[in-house]
Amino acid sequence: MSDAPKKVVLAYSGGLDTSIILKWLQTEYGCEVVTFTADLGQGEELEPARQKALLMGIKEENIHIVDLREEFVRDFVFPMFRANALYEGLYLLGTSIARPLISKYLVDIAQKSGADAVSHGATGKGNDQVRFELGVAALDPAIKVIAPWRLWDLSSRTKLLEFAEQNQIPIAKDKRGEAPFSVDANLLHTSSEGRVLENPAEEAPNYVLQRVVPVEDAPNEAEFVEITFEKGDAVAINGEALSPATILTRLNELGGKHGIGLLDLVENRFVGMKSRGVYETPGGTILLEAHRGIEQITLDSGAGHLKDSIMPRYAELIYNGFWFSPEREALQALIDKTQEHVSGTVRLKLYKGVARTVARWSDESLYSEKHVTFEEDAGAYDQKDAAGFIHLNALRLKLIAARNARRAKTK
Amino acid sequence: MSDAPKKVVLAYSGGLDTSIILKWLQTEYGCEVVTFTADLGQGEELEPARQKALLMGIKEENIHIVDLREEFVRDFVFPMFRANALYEGLYLLGTSIARPLISKYLVDIAQKSGADAVSHGATGKGNDQVRFELGVAALDPAIKVIAPWRLWDLSSRTKLLEFAEQNQIPIAKDKRGEAPFSVDANLLHTSSEGRVLENPAEEAPNYVLQRVVPVEDAPNEAEFVEITFEKGDAVAINGEALSPATILTRLNELGGKHGIGLLDLVENRFVGMKSRGVYETPGGTILLEAHRGIEQITLDSGAGHLKDSIMPRYAELIYNGFWFSPEREALQALIDKTQEHVSGTVRLKLYKGVARTVARWSDESLYSEKHVTFEEDAGAYDQKDAAGFIHLNALRLKLIAARNARRAKTK
Amino acid sequence: MSDAPKKVVLAYSGGLDTSIILKWLQTEYGCEVVTFTADLGQGEELEPARQKALLMGIKEENIHIVDLREEFVRDFVFPMFRANALYEGLYLLGTSIARPLISKYLVDIAQKSGADAVSHGATGKGNDQVRFELGVAALDPAIKVIAPWRLWDLSSRTKLLEFAEQNQIPIAKDKRGEAPFSVDANLLHTSSEGRVLENPAEEAPNYVLQRVVPVEDAPNEAEFVEITFEKGDAVAINGEALSPATILTRLNELGGKHGIGLLDLVENRFVGMKSRGVYETPGGTILLEAHRGIEQITLDSGAGHLKDSIMPRYAELIYNGFWFSPEREALQALIDKTQEHVSGTVRLKLYKGVARTVARWSDESLYSEKHVTFEEDAGAYDQKDAAGFIHLNALRLKLIAARNARRAKTK
Amino acid sequence: MSDAPKKVVLAYSGGLDTSIILKWLQTEYGCEVVTFTADLGQGEELEPARQKALLMGIKEENIHIVDLREEFVRDFVFPMFRANALYEGLYLLGTSIARPLISKYLVDIAQKSGADAVSHGATGKGNDQVRFELGVAALDPAIKVIAPWRLWDLSSRTKLLEFAEQNQIPIAKDKRGEAPFSVDANLLHTSSEGRVLENPAEEAPNYVLQRVVPVEDAPNEAEFVEITFEKGDAVAINGEALSPATILTRLNELGGKHGIGLLDLVENRFVGMKSRGVYETPGGTILLEAHRGIEQITLDSGAGHLKDSIMPRYAELIYNGFWFSPEREALQALIDKTQEHVSGTVRLKLYKGVARTVARWSDESLYSEKHVTFEEDAGAYDQKDAAGFIHLNALRLKLIAARNARRAKTK
Repeated sequence: MSDAPKKVVLAYSGGLDTSIILKWLQTEYGCEVVTFTADLGQGEELEPARQKALLMGIKEENIHIVDLREEFVRDFVFPMFRANALYEGLYLLGTSIARPLISKYLVDIAQKSGADAVSHGATGKGNDQVRFELGVAALDPAIKVIAPWRLWDLSSRTKLLEFAEQNQIPIAKDKRGEAPFSVDANLLHTSSEGRVLENPAEEAPNYVLQRVVPVEDAPNEAEFVEITFEKGDAVAINGEALSPATILTRLNELGGKHGIGLLDLVENRFVGMKSRGVYETPGGTILLEAHRGIEQITLDSGAGHLKDSIMPRYAELIYNGFWFSPEREALQALIDKTQEHVSGTVRLKLYKGVARTVARWSDESLYSEKHVTFEEDAGAYDQKDAAGFIHLNALRLKLIAARNARRAKTK
Repeated sequence: MSDAPKKVVLAYSGGLDTSIILKWLQTEYGCEVVTFTADLGQGEELEPARQKALLMGIKEENIHIVDLREEFVRDFVFPMFRANALYEGLYLLGTSIARPLISKYLVDIAQKSGADAVSHGATGKGNDQVRFELGVAALDPAIKVIAPWRLWDLSSRTKLLEFAEQNQIPIAKDKRGEAPFSVDANLLHTSSEGRVLENPAEEAPNYVLQRVVPVEDAPNEAEFVEITFEKGDAVAINGEALSPATILTRLNELGGKHGIGLLDLVENRFVGMKSRGVYETPGGTILLEAHRGIEQITLDSGAGHLKDSIMPRYAELIYNGFWFSPEREALQALIDKTQEHVSGTVRLKLYKGVARTVARWSDESLYSEKHVTFEEDAGAYDQKDAAGFIHLNALRLKLIAARNARRAKTK
Repeated sequence: MSDAPKKVVLAYSGGLDTSIILKWLQTEYGCEVVTFTADLGQGEELEPARQKALLMGIKEENIHIVDLREEFVRDFVFPMFRANALYEGLYLLGTSIARPLISKYLVDIAQKSGADAVSHGATGKGNDQVRFELGVAALDPAIKVIAPWRLWDLSSRTKLLEFAEQNQIPIAKDKRGEAPFSVDANLLHTSSEGRVLENPAEEAPNYVLQRVVPVEDAPNEAEFVEITFEKGDAVAINGEALSPATILTRLNELGGKHGIGLLDLVENRFVGMKSRGVYETPGGTILLEAHRGIEQITLDSGAGHLKDSIMPRYAELIYNGFWFSPEREALQALIDKTQEHVSGTVRLKLYKGVARTVARWSDESLYSEKHVTFEEDAGAYDQKDAAGFIHLNALRLKLIAARNARRAKTK
Repeated sequence: MSDAPKKVVLAYSGGLDTSIILKWLQTEYGCEVVTFTADLGQGEELEPARQKALLMGIKEENIHIVDLREEFVRDFVFPMFRANALYEGLYLLGTSIARPLISKYLVDIAQKSGADAVSHGATGKGNDQVRFELGVAALDPAIKVIAPWRLWDLSSRTKLLEFAEQNQIPIAKDKRGEAPFSVDANLLHTSSEGRVLENPAEEAPNYVLQRVVPVEDAPNEAEFVEITFEKGDAVAINGEALSPATILTRLNELGGKHGIGLLDLVENRFVGMKSRGVYETPGGTILLEAHRGIEQITLDSGAGHLKDSIMPRYAELIYNGFWFSPEREALQALIDKTQEHVSGTVRLKLYKGVARTVARWSDESLYSEKHVTFEEDAGAYDQKDAAGFIHLNALRLKLIAARNARRAKTK
């Protein structure tokens, strides 16, 4: 097969499925495999992935384990949160936003190691294959992508396990049976889907929860937290300056403890079907609320309404895998421009599943008590101006009404 | 004053402020006053308004007290909820949506009673003056609007009380002093603003709350509720078919009891300033969540994303007072078109400030377990299709990357 | 091949390519073929298609030749023109808008004749395959689509001609060689692309033109035409009431004669590549100008600006083949709602490639000379209102400027 | 009058109207007047303005005559053209885009000369007052604006002339009578409106034309011009590098000679009424066509469609006077981001009122003949990919159709 890849960088978790892929690449193409394992805050030990890779014959220098947590939050999560991005009104895009970063490293490592292809373990039904592959296409169109789930005939659990056994791939006991649902995790969220969750008419069982406590088990006392922003990004918690990943980690702890950020959603996949997922985004949920809180006093209505109006499109682009596209970058330029004065502090109350802004202040505030007050305003605002404002806003409506009345008469 | 109104329909609550306006209209213009008092579900007795009006010399036939609750929910609240409308990402537009209905009745009564003007008690700083007056302009441009707050010199509490005393207007004891904040209420929400709430850096005190219990006082046990929709509108609760106003009343009780629907917001007024309000929308918050829930399985992504993208503009129009405008009506046509199949039932969990969709089902469902399943799908979906789908979506990104690489070389 | 179609409805032009497809379907699948030939105003005799089909063994009752001109203009072209739709700012969508109608008849005929598949002659590189197939999917998902260009190995002109010869398909002399460019035509436009037009840096030769005279050859005298609209659709020319297709036919004659409606465009195909086309849309170009002309006096700015803002998305949907989609239908509901008063007459000057509105009048006019006049306006408009209007529109800008000045000082 | 201005910067043309304003300011407020006269390419001698100002007692150092042509085109016209901005589908915004620059200089001169107010000659019915005053508000909210037309009682031509005579203001003979229409001009366009143009049902007479020849008088031979762009801005004509203002001047000459850029429009003013104007934008019309031409090959569809979708809003902002607003600046950031590769050359044919792109080429081209060709493409594009692409785009449409069919059966 002249078209067969010679050297493939595989997004490798160390788990059973990507181990099978690793072996399959070796046997199917006789190619050299380079593994890439990223710490995106999914909360798993990564060193075992190295051991497994070595066991499967991967050369030491072909094993890449990288801590991407700061880059993930700084260059992907935070820019997205500047937009208050929500897919279909509710979803904080926790899986979507991690994929382009993985594509970036797959391509980087491929370029540095002279690989001609990359490979991933996403199935042919989901969004992740699209996200991975659009990312690779945008970053280096010469690199091939191998998507084994769309290629092989290991179409059932049984066949997969047979292949693993035939190839001496160790199978953890709990992987023998089907998992009751499938999980993806990173520093922004945990998503669960499939099997026990496939019927959207049935409530998701509590045992699905990974990082958010059931709200009944959350503390009976509220906790307050203050988040400080600079140009749209969180920079401190309770007055303590922290790195992006540290901020998100802390907010995850706080949110998880208080049962915040649980979402049960049926969403529209880019590939055309609906799917149901349970998402836990404790820190992100707090962050969105806080960001909206600080924008409330620092962002002008013109810029704010503009942002709101393009947000659904921006969120859709990220969901569909177009992070590295000219249109996402153009929208980002718009969003970032609006954040120049979005600095200040928000105080939130965390309690039983809710993060609610209760106060906010900023040196950049546009809120003018002098103008809005019910008290004497010392001439800050001339109420008579409102008459002219209304008259001219009403003029076209009056002309329409007069036209319609005139027409009604003649008909 | 040849321009002076002869007969004025006043939006009359029966309270001190509109009683002062009533008297002021009589003395300033020597005109006949017609009172209009609407039951929009604000939760106040309206008969006292009749007594007061009579006391101030209004003729029996000039007193109009109308129960508008069903019309309010059916023709204003429900159409708006079809759009999942949120102003500035968070506000459910509880005050905004009631104003056009009041304008409609002011105009109707004026036309029927031969009045040449209408009057309202909104100040010159707020949005309500705009909403009332744009509504009147659109419905009958020949009718004048008298906005006393923009005209008179009763610019302080002291002067108002003096005027009341001079004119034998009874002043309730608790109206002698300044109220600590100002309240507007109807079946959709209660809003509080002003005075103790004017500093957005200070948390709103619990005594502001009117219809939502402090979340700490909400029951320690969750409650489940099922809401059934037909073509985008709620029609039943827990299987019981109910009228629009009854549905919202019941959801208000449920939401209020569980501390649901409290919002502390700094928003941008149409007249150019920021203001801070505390909003309680218990039933509306449940309804929005439920409507999103039923749309998740019945609405296609094309229609859904389109709706989401125009929603901010739709919400802004309502907030700004353009309910009776061609553009709101055109957007409504779009929204209503999308709701033809939005029928089915949503199950929500209510607990400690949160209303969360946990299940949904519908005869109109577009969710296809057969397509999305992790199991064998019996050919419902050919995973190989995804390759072509991705390749063509990637093509333009590859062409860009190739162009950029070519350019980088020559530079 | 159990999956092979039993009976296929073929979109059949009678030309060489679709005759080859007809034969290929017969030989490849041994299936019964039903031909569908539509008169969309392409300006070709259709009876020869019947003769050819008979010659190739198609049964009389399996030959469908239908005049769709009125339906095409009334139900597709006119609704689209209500939106002033332009793809990428310039293209009047002449090919795109014809495709869903063909899909509709393919499906109708398939359902009536018990066919299990339809087939078309569009290649795998273009937009038309997408448009045909999305249409079929939306109208009857059970019907298979056979796209021979994506299936067979007749990948060169030589192979095609060989196949034709082997199968006794008559080849017109002028089809022996390659045509210098490829043409698609219907009542709305003629498009030319390919071969001599493939280099966008070279001017298209005049011999490409099919229905628009080279502008140098257009009459040296201007001609005026008056078009009357009702609810957004043209209904009369120079006072004569005419059917939709007749109107477009007449405007094509007028426009063609005056060299109007020629466009040389590089556009973005849905499948990801750029292509260059030469489009001739004489009548459509006049119609768009006239429709804008009548909207100018009958459409309010609110509705007008809303329409303008969603137009690019609407045009993109039609271009991409999503005519039969919920989102196109929802947008159409919006657009149609705005057209209720778009009635009246526009006078245009046609001269040397330009159709220009020079006058317009309407009983539905919103234009108020009384308001706009430079002369005394008898109180129609109070210039002092403008001060308040400006002050409140300026308020937020002043608050921003004050904030920025304050910040500049402290930095 | 304690509120009276002490020192006022007047936008002074040297004409009768602004001379009357100058005198009126002096007599009404007893204030010092500073004159500001800008060369925006309106094609008038400006030195006479100096003489007149001196005659009316303005001090030498208070007279400012500034050539703003390069700044106008570079910082206002060109950024706007990057967006392909058209107001209401047709208007190139020639007047609108000049106003913020005048505001900028009014404020600059006021700040430098210690003036506390600025003044302009725009009436209370038009858009220009809004544009001037929003600009001033955004740039220095402390500066007052005096708008004499909204203040004085010189409400008729007779009164104005009387005032002029009483104050020894010289009146040119041709200003005794009413001008048949009113003109505004700058390097981008000439606009004419009022009086003979007030009836939109009557064709504008040819004598209105100021810079575009009647198309019948244009040369009978076409002329070709090549315009080179860099990052979205024109930088050369026929290979000759030129400054922004020189480019626009040359294109005006070319366009004017060939009768290009004439528009007769009824538009919606921000203040709520419709007005009719005749616009001549010869150079701008060529520039728009050329800019679209170069974008066709250098701009990706994602960025291009995004730009198109926000363009109407961008144009509306400029029309309404919000150039110096956060939302215009944010949109500009988006637009500018898309222009990074919009470089190359467009060849246009100019003839009898039409500027038409006939060819375009660029080192930044995304056009790939290899992909689009009708010939063998050597594997650049796999037509089979289209099947998967279509299948997944069709999936949701099929699910809808299946749902609807299922529902139809049960109803």
